[in-house]
Amino acid sequence: MAKQAVEKTEYARGLEGVVTNETAVGYVDGVKGQLVYRGYSIEDLAEHSSYEETAYLLLFGKLPTQQELDGFKAKLVSYRSIPGQVIDVLKALPRSAHPMAMLRTGISALGCFNPKADQATVENDTEIGFKLIAQMATVTAAVARIRKGVDPVDPDPSLDHTANFLYMAGGEKADPFITRVMDVALILHADHGNNASTFSCMAVNSSLSDLYSAIVAGIGSLKGPLHGGANEQALKELLSIGSQDRVDDYVKKRLEEKKKFIGFGHRVYKTYDPRAKILGRYSKEVTERKGMDHLHETARRLEEQVVAEFGERGIFTNVDFYSGTIYHSLGFEAPMFTTLFAVSRIAGWVARILEYLPENRLFRPRALYVGELEAHYIPIDQR
Amino acid sequence: MAKQAVEKTEYARGLEGVVTNETAVGYVDGVKGQLVYRGYSIEDLAEHSSYEETAYLLLFGKLPTQQELDGFKAKLVSYRSIPGQVIDVLKALPRSAHPMAMLRTGISALGCFNPKADQATVENDTEIGFKLIAQMATVTAAVARIRKGVDPVDPDPSLDHTANFLYMAGGEKADPFITRVMDVALILHADHGNNASTFSCMAVNSSLSDLYSAIVAGIGSLKGPLHGGANEQALKELLSIGSQDRVDDYVKKRLEEKKKFIGFGHRVYKTYDPRAKILGRYSKEVTERKGMDHLHETARRLEEQVVAEFGERGIFTNVDFYSGTIYHSLGFEAPMFTTLFAVSRIAGWVARILEYLPENRLFRPRALYVGELEAHYIPIDQR
Repeated sequence: MAKQAVEKTEYARGLEGVVTNETAVGYVDGVKGQLVYRGYSIEDLAEHSSYEETAYLLLFGKLPTQQELDGFKAKLVSYRSIPGQVIDVLKALPRSAHPMAMLRTGISALGCFNPKADQATVENDTEIGFKLIAQMATVTAAVARIRKGVDPVDPDPSLDHTANFLYMAGGEKADPFITRVMDVALILHADHGNNASTFSCMAVNSSLSDLYSAIVAGIGSLKGPLHGGANEQALKELLSIGSQDRVDDYVKKRLEEKKKFIGFGHRVYKTYDPRAKILGRYSKEVTERKGMDHLHETARRLEEQVVAEFGERGIFTNVDFYSGTIYHSLGFEAPMFTTLFAVSRIAGWVARILEYLPENRLFRPRALYVGELEAHYIPIDQR
Repeated sequence: MAKQAVEKTEYARGLEGVVTNETAVGYVDGVKGQLVYRGYSIEDLAEHSSYEETAYLLLFGKLPTQQELDGFKAKLVSYRSIPGQVIDVLKALPRSAHPMAMLRTGISALGCFNPKADQATVENDTEIGFKLIAQMATVTAAVARIRKGVDPVDPDPSLDHTANFLYMAGGEKADPFITRVMDVALILHADHGNNASTFSCMAVNSSLSDLYSAIVAGIGSLKGPLHGGANEQALKELLSIGSQDRVDDYVKKRLEEKKKFIGFGHRVYKTYDPRAKILGRYSKEVTERKGMDHLHETARRLEEQVVAEFGERGIFTNVDFYSGTIYHSLGFEAPMFTTLFAVSRIAGWVARILEYLPENRLFRPRALYVGELEAHYIPIDQR
């Protein structure tokens, strides 16, 4: 066997610092706290854009004209419905299952119903991408309802993407402010560099498998507490603290126990996550409207304390911190939070998969073998 | 924005040559054509071992004593059954769906039924690993039967893993020779370095999501024609050639069209894939017994021609070439082939996920941003 294989060499655990591909989809400057999609700042998009327009931008690299946007929205509307059998699949699962596991199963099932799933071309996968952007919302809304023991609601073609999603999830039309808050949350989560779930999607797709397999992997990755699963944990932490006046004791205890604070710190950002700033403002407004000011005030106090303690070491509020207070105010149960992340991130996943596809190269890194090389098989009665 | 981010730098497309982690699970020497699991050569294991023993070896790093093997086998037997609702899920899918998409969905559904799925500890995931080794076979057998419109068969606890799998898939007990051929095929496919599906599993699991999410990603990756999906394509090619005397014309035509030969060449091997050599011998024997000699002879002739043409450039028969003739002789339909790969590879997936877990680090490489940085939002009526 090759001797060099067992020598110690440098390796990139977690692939930190390794550059896998070129991209023009989006960029994170973790030092300055800047996030861009196709060159547009997240602040501009949160203020002026819609989820559909942002998804179009991520996919096609330019802001759409009115005609292009209308066409794209019509396409998404046409793809909102899912086969009744996929609803049956979701209903066959235990209601106690994690919603991300249900979503993973539902999207995987959807792939079985698409006879064109296995044509790994940009043209074909763009169309499947449109479907999945529309249907991630439909399946997520169905999961939310089936968990509660109520029937899914059919999509309403007269509503925009986010309004329709809130309608399918909640069973009634949301007011314009709530719809706008949710739309902004979806815009803010749509892409974020070469994050773990996006990379998992790209890794799976690189065997030219199919877009459903890739997106199912993305859902699986996003589910984890080191990734999207953190927003659920962050809210649970806030709820367990309960009120603003208990924050200081909580922080003190947590510091003594040397435990981390959930919703703070990020592999990339060494300053405030720009998404957290925007969501923080909306959190204040939406919690006030919903009479949940105490939740926001608890969050604010926790943020102050943790940043005072750790800000110098580059640990600040991240996107998971205020998305939780917002989603909670909007009536979503904590276990559903990460599915909302998926409803948004599907745009970035698809955009980056499509970008990599024309010059696809199978992701197959090496491992450094440090085990035995010449073991000799011994019959079981002599072991 | 940071200027260096838009400068050209070296990057590792497909992560070729990048070393992600240390491993003692297994090693491939592509130059010498050697494959070891925990130091034991694949030739030794194919000759002396069983799938259960090989899975134990991959998971625990040593060959089991009789008592350990008995305990492990009893554990697998106890985990073979799957919830009836998972069968319902599979039955809700269209029979025309790709079996790998059905398997992906079935395993994802299984995860919804395990209330302990989300405890990402070695102890917990080892137990789930046992379940998945047993249940990958059960779900695959169910998929094979549901596709044919017949009901799944309950596992038989008196049978060993491979015999039980063939029984569940075919509805009757296989003879000892056929069982042995299948067992060898499962041994040979159980692990293969840091391959694409294994790496996809590890990437998904690194967010500490859950083992089901990781394995579902592995299935999705394996499904692709640049990975496990190649065995299905290789057999289809052989069947389309039809007979030995048509091979030379086929090769000539294919060379003129500058098309690749499926079942040849490998990212790692620059010589004969050692698994192909072993499978080639079994292919000859099993096709003879099943009266399908012509298929093997066609394959042999194709191998000779292609290796004569490309051997100097390091292109030889790979594992996908003779696994197809064997599986076809055993009565499996071509679309099922890659699921058989998964029935085996689950052992390697679990072993390497468990190995990485204690010092887990989220896989999050970088992308090199080459897009615009300071685009200015323009209202839609001015675009």
